[in-house]
Amino acid sequence: MSTSLRTDYPLPTAPTYEDVVAAAQRIEGFAHRTPVLTSRTADARAGATLFFKAENLQRAGAFKFRGAYNAIARLPEDARKRGVVAFSSGNHAQAIAYAGQLQNVPRVIIMPHDAPAMKIAATKAYGGEVVLFDRYKEDREEIGRRLSADRGLTLIPPYDHEDVIAGQGTAAKELIEEVGPLDILLVCLGGGGLLAGSALAAKALSPQCCVFGVEPEAGNDGQQSFRSGSVVRIPVPTTIADGAQTTYLGSRTFPIIQALVDDILTVSDAMLIDAMRFFVERMKIVVEPTGCLAAAAALNGLLPAQGKRIGVILSGGNVDPRALAGFLTA
Amino acid sequence: MSTSLRTDYPLPTAPTYEDVVAAAQRIEGFAHRTPVLTSRTADARAGATLFFKAENLQRAGAFKFRGAYNAIARLPEDARKRGVVAFSSGNHAQAIAYAGQLQNVPRVIIMPHDAPAMKIAATKAYGGEVVLFDRYKEDREEIGRRLSADRGLTLIPPYDHEDVIAGQGTAAKELIEEVGPLDILLVCLGGGGLLAGSALAAKALSPQCCVFGVEPEAGNDGQQSFRSGSVVRIPVPTTIADGAQTTYLGSRTFPIIQALVDDILTVSDAMLIDAMRFFVERMKIVVEPTGCLAAAAALNGLLPAQGKRIGVILSGGNVDPRALAGFLTA
Repeated sequence: MSTSLRTDYPLPTAPTYEDVVAAAQRIEGFAHRTPVLTSRTADARAGATLFFKAENLQRAGAFKFRGAYNAIARLPEDARKRGVVAFSSGNHAQAIAYAGQLQNVPRVIIMPHDAPAMKIAATKAYGGEVVLFDRYKEDREEIGRRLSADRGLTLIPPYDHEDVIAGQGTAAKELIEEVGPLDILLVCLGGGGLLAGSALAAKALSPQCCVFGVEPEAGNDGQQSFRSGSVVRIPVPTTIADGAQTTYLGSRTFPIIQALVDDILTVSDAMLIDAMRFFVERMKIVVEPTGCLAAAAALNGLLPAQGKRIGVILSGGNVDPRALAGFLTA
Repeated sequence: MSTSLRTDYPLPTAPTYEDVVAAAQRIEGFAHRTPVLTSRTADARAGATLFFKAENLQRAGAFKFRGAYNAIARLPEDARKRGVVAFSSGNHAQAIAYAGQLQNVPRVIIMPHDAPAMKIAATKAYGGEVVLFDRYKEDREEIGRRLSADRGLTLIPPYDHEDVIAGQGTAAKELIEEVGPLDILLVCLGGGGLLAGSALAAKALSPQCCVFGVEPEAGNDGQQSFRSGSVVRIPVPTTIADGAQTTYLGSRTFPIIQALVDDILTVSDAMLIDAMRFFVERMKIVVEPTGCLAAAAALNGLLPAQGKRIGVILSGGNVDPRALAGFLTA
C-alpha cells in the first residue's frame, strides 16, 4: 500500500480543506461533536487500533446533518426566505429537514416511496414537507429541478455540492484532531460526499494517511469508476445498504476522489449484518447497514491493517427497529 | 420537591466524596470517560433538558468497571497475587474479570446459572474463572465466602464495599463536571452502589441537586427501605431488569442513600421496553433493561421535571442481541 498524494489526477480547486475548516466553524454548536469510540474486541479482530467516529450519534442520526447545515447556512438571505428542496434516499432528507428547522428555512423533501418508514416519519417530524416518488420509475433530480423552478426553492443535492462536501469533511477533521495522525481512514461510499470531504481533511491533517472508500459489492459503481478513471453508471443495486444505492458518483465528488483516495473496496451484505450485530453486542451502538460499510472492511481483514492506526467513520444509525431486530436474529 | 442535604440521617464517615476523587484519579486512562448524550426528542418528551451519561459505552459495557477497577487497584500486593472472587448477576462479573485482566490479578466469578448467555461468555472471554450457581436455591454470598476462605481470594462484592461505591461515584462526577450543576440526578437502583456513589458526587459538586433512585416496580425493596428507614428484604423479583433483581440494600450503601437521596421511584417493565426502543430508534444506542430504569422515570413524567436540568445515568448496555430483538418487536 503506497501513500499519497497521488499526482496522476489534479485536485479540483473547490472545495478545498479551507472550506472544510470554514464549515467546521459554521456548524460548531449546531452539529454534535460526536464521540470517538474504541473497543479492544474490535482491535483484536482487526489486528489494528481502530478509532470509530460515531456519526450514528450525530443529530438526525447521520453525518448528513453536517453538509446540510453548512449548505443552508451559506445561502443568501433571499434564498433562505424562499426555502430549499432536497432529494434523498433518507438521511440527507432528515438532515435538510432538521438543519432547515434550526435555521428557520422552509424545506421540501423528495423521498423514495420505499424509504424506511422511520426515515419518512422522522423527516416529517422535523417539519419538512415530504414528496414521495418511485425511484425505480421516476427521476428524483428531474422532480427536484421542477420544484426548484416552480417555487423558487434552492436545490441542495445530497452529495454533489461544494458546501455539502465541505460540511461532510468536518467529521474526519474532528476525528484526526482528536486522536492524532492515522495510517488508514475508511469511509463508506454512496455518492461520494463523505468520502471526498473526508479525503480533503485527512490529506491536510495526516498527509501519510491512506484513504479508502467502501461500498456494497452489489453497487460497486464507485470502484469501477475509480479504477477506470471515468464515472460509471449502474442500475439501482439491491443491497441492505440503502444509503449507498446511488448509481453513479457526482461530477464534483469524483475528481476529488480520483485525486486523493487510494482505492475503493467492497463488502457483502452478510458482512454488514455481522458488523451490525458486532456493534450491538460488543459496542452497544446501533449502526445502520450503510454505516457499517467502512467497519466491515476493517473487521473482515479486507486490507493490510496489521498494527495500523485506522479511522473508521460510522456514518449513520437510522435503521428501523423492526428491521434491526430481523438482522439481529438472521 | 425540596433540596437536600437532609439532616435527619447522619452521613457515614466512609466512603466520602474525597474517596470518589481518589477513585477518579485511579481509574483515569483505564476506564473510558464516557460521552454525555443529548436528544431534542427526549427533551421534548420529558419537558426538561436531559443529559444522558452513557455508561453503556463503558468498558465491559457498564458502570461496574469503575468500582471493580478501583477496588482491585486498592488491594495490597500479596492480596493481588492470590486473586479476587466476585459474585454477580452479570455486569459486576464482567467488570471484575476485565479489571482483573488489566491489572494481572487472578479472578474467580460466581454467576447465576440463568444469567444472560452473553454475559457469561463475555466474562469467560475476559479470562475470568466462572462458577455457576442457582440463585433461587443457593446463597451466592456463602459460596463466595467459602471460595475466599479456601483459596485466600479477596471477595469483592458487587455493591456493598467502600471502594466499589467510591468507584461508581466517578460517573456522576464526570457528568456534572462536563455539563455543570443539575436540578435532578436519576440513577438506577439495585444494591445501591451506583446510587450511593452518585449521591456523594452530586451533593459535593451540585449541592442543590435532588438525587432519585429508580428501581423496578416488582422489586421495590429500596423504596420500602428508604421510606421505612430500615433495610427491607424481598424475594427475588421477577423483572426484565436483571441487574436490579437484588433483594436488599447493602449495609454500606443504605446509610448513604438514607442521608443523601431524596426519594426512590419505581417503573414498570413496559416502561423499560419502551425506553429501550426509544434509545435504539432515536438515540442509536443499546441500553439494557436495568440501564433504562433512570431514563424511564424521566421519559414517563414520573417526577416534576418541567424546565429542569436532569442528569440520567444509563448504567449499562449488556443485553443479548436476540433478547433485544424480542423487545424491539414486542
